[in-house]
Amino acid sequence: MPVKRLDPIPSDIEIAQAAELLPIVEVAKSVGLTEDDIDLQGKWKAKVHLDVLEKFKDRPNGKYIDVTAITPTPLGEGKTVTTIGVSQGLHYIGKKVFTCIRQPSQGPTFGIKGGAAGGGYAQIVPMEDFNLHLTGDIHAVGAAHNLLAAAINNRMAKEARWSTDYMAKALCPNDEYTPSMRKRLEKLGIESEKPSDLNDEDKERMFRLNIDPDGIQWRRVVDVSDAALRNIIVGLGGVNNGVVRETGYDITVASEIMAALAMCSDLADLRERMGRIIIGTSKAGGLSSKGSVDPITAEDLNVAGAMTVLLKDAIMPNMMQTLAGSPAFVHCGPFANIAQGNSSIIADKIALKLVGPEGYVVTESGFGADCGMEKFMNLKCRYSGLVPDCVVIVCTVRALKMHGGGPKVVAGKPLDRAYTEENLELLEKGLPNLLQHVENAVKFGVPVVVAINRFKYDTEAELELIRTRAKKTGAEDAVMHNVWAMGGEGGADLARAVVAACEKSNHFHYLYEDDMSIKEKIETIVREIYRADGVDYTPEAEAKIKLFTDMGLAHLPLCMAKTHLSFTHDPAIKGTPRGWRMPVTDVRASVGAGFIFPLCGTMKTMPGLPTRPVFTDIDIDVETGKVLGLS
Amino acid sequence: MPVKRLDPIPSDIEIAQAAELLPIVEVAKSVGLTEDDIDLQGKWKAKVHLDVLEKFKDRPNGKYIDVTAITPTPLGEGKTVTTIGVSQGLHYIGKKVFTCIRQPSQGPTFGIKGGAAGGGYAQIVPMEDFNLHLTGDIHAVGAAHNLLAAAINNRMAKEARWSTDYMAKALCPNDEYTPSMRKRLEKLGIESEKPSDLNDEDKERMFRLNIDPDGIQWRRVVDVSDAALRNIIVGLGGVNNGVVRETGYDITVASEIMAALAMCSDLADLRERMGRIIIGTSKAGGLSSKGSVDPITAEDLNVAGAMTVLLKDAIMPNMMQTLAGSPAFVHCGPFANIAQGNSSIIADKIALKLVGPEGYVVTESGFGADCGMEKFMNLKCRYSGLVPDCVVIVCTVRALKMHGGGPKVVAGKPLDRAYTEENLELLEKGLPNLLQHVENAVKFGVPVVVAINRFKYDTEAELELIRTRAKKTGAEDAVMHNVWAMGGEGGADLARAVVAACEKSNHFHYLYEDDMSIKEKIETIVREIYRADGVDYTPEAEAKIKLFTDMGLAHLPLCMAKTHLSFTHDPAIKGTPRGWRMPVTDVRASVGAGFIFPLCGTMKTMPGLPTRPVFTDIDIDVETGKVLGLS
Repeated sequence: MPVKRLDPIPSDIEIAQAAELLPIVEVAKSVGLTEDDIDLQGKWKAKVHLDVLEKFKDRPNGKYIDVTAITPTPLGEGKTVTTIGVSQGLHYIGKKVFTCIRQPSQGPTFGIKGGAAGGGYAQIVPMEDFNLHLTGDIHAVGAAHNLLAAAINNRMAKEARWSTDYMAKALCPNDEYTPSMRKRLEKLGIESEKPSDLNDEDKERMFRLNIDPDGIQWRRVVDVSDAALRNIIVGLGGVNNGVVRETGYDITVASEIMAALAMCSDLADLRERMGRIIIGTSKAGGLSSKGSVDPITAEDLNVAGAMTVLLKDAIMPNMMQTLAGSPAFVHCGPFANIAQGNSSIIADKIALKLVGPEGYVVTESGFGADCGMEKFMNLKCRYSGLVPDCVVIVCTVRALKMHGGGPKVVAGKPLDRAYTEENLELLEKGLPNLLQHVENAVKFGVPVVVAINRFKYDTEAELELIRTRAKKTGAEDAVMHNVWAMGGEGGADLARAVVAACEKSNHFHYLYEDDMSIKEKIETIVREIYRADGVDYTPEAEAKIKLFTDMGLAHLPLCMAKTHLSFTHDPAIKGTPRGWRMPVTDVRASVGAGFIFPLCGTMKTMPGLPTRPVFTDIDIDVETGKVLGLS
Repeated sequence: MPVKRLDPIPSDIEIAQAAELLPIVEVAKSVGLTEDDIDLQGKWKAKVHLDVLEKFKDRPNGKYIDVTAITPTPLGEGKTVTTIGVSQGLHYIGKKVFTCIRQPSQGPTFGIKGGAAGGGYAQIVPMEDFNLHLTGDIHAVGAAHNLLAAAINNRMAKEARWSTDYMAKALCPNDEYTPSMRKRLEKLGIESEKPSDLNDEDKERMFRLNIDPDGIQWRRVVDVSDAALRNIIVGLGGVNNGVVRETGYDITVASEIMAALAMCSDLADLRERMGRIIIGTSKAGGLSSKGSVDPITAEDLNVAGAMTVLLKDAIMPNMMQTLAGSPAFVHCGPFANIAQGNSSIIADKIALKLVGPEGYVVTESGFGADCGMEKFMNLKCRYSGLVPDCVVIVCTVRALKMHGGGPKVVAGKPLDRAYTEENLELLEKGLPNLLQHVENAVKFGVPVVVAINRFKYDTEAELELIRTRAKKTGAEDAVMHNVWAMGGEGGADLARAVVAACEKSNHFHYLYEDDMSIKEKIETIVREIYRADGVDYTPEAEAKIKLFTDMGLAHLPLCMAKTHLSFTHDPAIKGTPRGWRMPVTDVRASVGAGFIFPLCGTMKTMPGLPTRPVFTDIDIDVETGKVLGLS
């Protein structure tokens, strides 16, 4: 699929729509998949069956490359473009390669940000499919999430109205337990063959969940940026509508279910994770109780099976292609602050088998390396058991200058001279941000390559300065690329550096062990990665740490919820701050996803819309069916 | 695909999962579609491109059969089973046939009702796909609906904060109008080439919509039965979250967008319908204003293009198959009270071309014939221009006895003797309900066949009584079937009767004309179909009729929002009531869908959950991936 490059470079959607794509069935065949291994979703997308993992289980994995970045400016530094570009570069130099990236949320696509399929001549295509619905996985996550929310409200409403005897008879009309109910019996330590055997106390424990309305963590989700839903009151209009209480909506990709889907290894694991989701506690076993703990799970609500059923197709990765015709998986899109911000383990695992020992899998971690890469290593690789062969850290001269104290960069406003002219002094001041990320990556024992995403203003002297300093700090290499303008050809040098780095010795290890306490884990990340002097916990955070420890959750790994715009909790602080302490304001648990997430400041989990949302320019050509104005 | 029938008859999901399906690409080929005409969605589903209408435009249509029913009992009378069964029967006797039915909502699937793919040996398969997500169309409708809701709230919040000058500059940063903005200019009668040309008054009219928060008709939707969302307060939490106000959620299939999608004829028509959607009025031009009217549309919010983009795949019908291997379209699922309750016009039109002049298209109308069939004739056929060749009215002996005054029928409770033993007297008393539906169908000038869905208790004398009286009232024939137990073979006699009826002379016409007033249209339906003596309007209904007439909407056809459990507005009144008046409590407009809908009583647009929702039994076999417990 030779893409004919034009000058000047057209818009992303023009490039994407002009590309001659390979039928996805051909892309699948190029990596050894038969038509029985995939479910076509039209001509350009396919779901890949999970049993290909079994089919290729004896084949050694390919090389595993994580693409991450320095602390970004609000404009972004081209991490996705580089991820796709390094893949196209590997393809260009004749390597077998698979790209694994996240599915974007439709909220920002129609709101502030626009599409996320890469850009220029480094894109995943068709970009409309990539940005719109894809194969419906995010909608499936939303359906499962909101089914659980409805189950919570319904159970509370029914328990408020009915006696325990009535509840028992209604839930077990034939005096039989469902498999889900047997799991609750086991959790409660009750031995019983049928409900009519239960004594009154056990019947009460079994059939009255007694959910604490003030302790419900489970909100609702929608894949639209809708600020009016951040805080809402539900249950108005009378007793048939349930309990009146305050709650709210998050954007669907912030759902714990999205995080769990991305973290699971197969259908059985997903089913377990759905059952483990904690939605809150009983009135007697929550934060306000003295000592006793009683988390209420989706399994307790008998809905985890139905939730998994809703996800049975979403668990299969979606195959698409890059503009070079190389295969890509677009699968899952968990938030990068309150969740791991990485695409799915299943997609990476399948891709590593499909490319085989001579091939390469390029996967992307969201946000800067202090967020996405740290979670990739400590969290995603811990659950997957996979070992990365190389980390690529993306930077731009512009962003480094900003870290050096350059003027503020605002989307839509012209760039200051500091960014459009050579300024080695400013660049030198900003370099430590990149170098701290390099040092951090090196701490995990994995070879590092710095990728400089070249902009037209960048000078050779600036690039050379970055290169010298990055290598001195432990990077294997630092290579510029120009994939946006030149596609795979513009990424060939970077690809060669990545190939070389993957051959270097690898001492991969996690930064902390499972059996450390929650606080020890937090402090390890805060000192080693963010370089703070220590941690200050609010009383609420202290109470939550105790609660989760009492619940037996302290063994879980962490997912730090922190801004990506700074190494600290304050997005305004650039560079490499020292001599500060990290505040932990609250601690939460995503047990279905498999982590504890300490909150370092307030995280927005529902974006808003600007005065002129991106949707203002989007329309359809009713004659051709082509999407217009998607950026 | 010969289905091996078992005795006793297994559960629906067991039958469906045991069936040997044809690859859908083979089903498509059987009706002349090539691989380029379809987008495969896995092996068993495909989206059909709309340009096949162009491809086959010179081919005469097949025969067009609407399946409807008498006033149902709460258990349902097997309308979907009969729809699929008569199709399998036509297939069995060697006819080319296409079945067109609605996609069910996931809310009831997991809540009260369970699946809706037919039953026994008359099903659409795979039934899991049919009942779960299908190809994501309902989710796409939800995304488009909720994007408009977010756009409304965002516009109100931004207008509350910014000056008109700021709004104008933000919306037109390059001093240019978008095509959508040009439509608003035209509507306002303002001639302007660029925003900076506008005088202050016109700028205010153009860029300040001044939406009346109390007059917003547009709620949000979710495809989950969640009673707690019926009435909610949004916008809490501060000025960034917008305007605090009361609103609520409907189930997605109740969305006006679902109705519009089912009613549109192509992409251009859909785009127009999205733009026409009225979300409310300005403060100065609503119900409380004196005379001036100012409806606010999705086009005014510059979001109708993006909404259409979200629906670009949903507009394509989904091809599946019956247990006989004959083709089926499952497309759209608009509510049957506040909307038309019929599957899509596009699906029917494509099916009629695909079967060709020797073939048959069997389509189903929701609810009883006073609801679904009346809307099929007056509303759906008015927009499609299609002429039905035959109406099939489904009845059961049990339901007729209930209309005759038999004891109440409750799901899950054993049937009374009145229903399990021959009782000609009770049946005779109940027959008028069927006969009124027959008369009503005859009024439209279309041949009628009565289909008696046979139950094991029914006697020959009971069946003969129905047959005699139905024919005397104008039905061409009345035939019993047993498709649930016997599949196509059990529907062969019914199929032959349908074939014969389709050859009869046809005098199809609507019951009212476009140019009648809203009240004249209401009164025509109420007198001719429901047989009330007249209509009583509340003051609110009167005010709305005036408002919509002032807005120029009186030419629209009607969609009566009425219970299906009675000819009247009161679900408790069975049989064929006479000497009563119909109250019209409110009148609303779905301008995107293309109708005015008078409310005869309160319509629930968000179902609740029972104490033991259907999801309690649903789970997945993690080894095989099979869905368990879906009914």
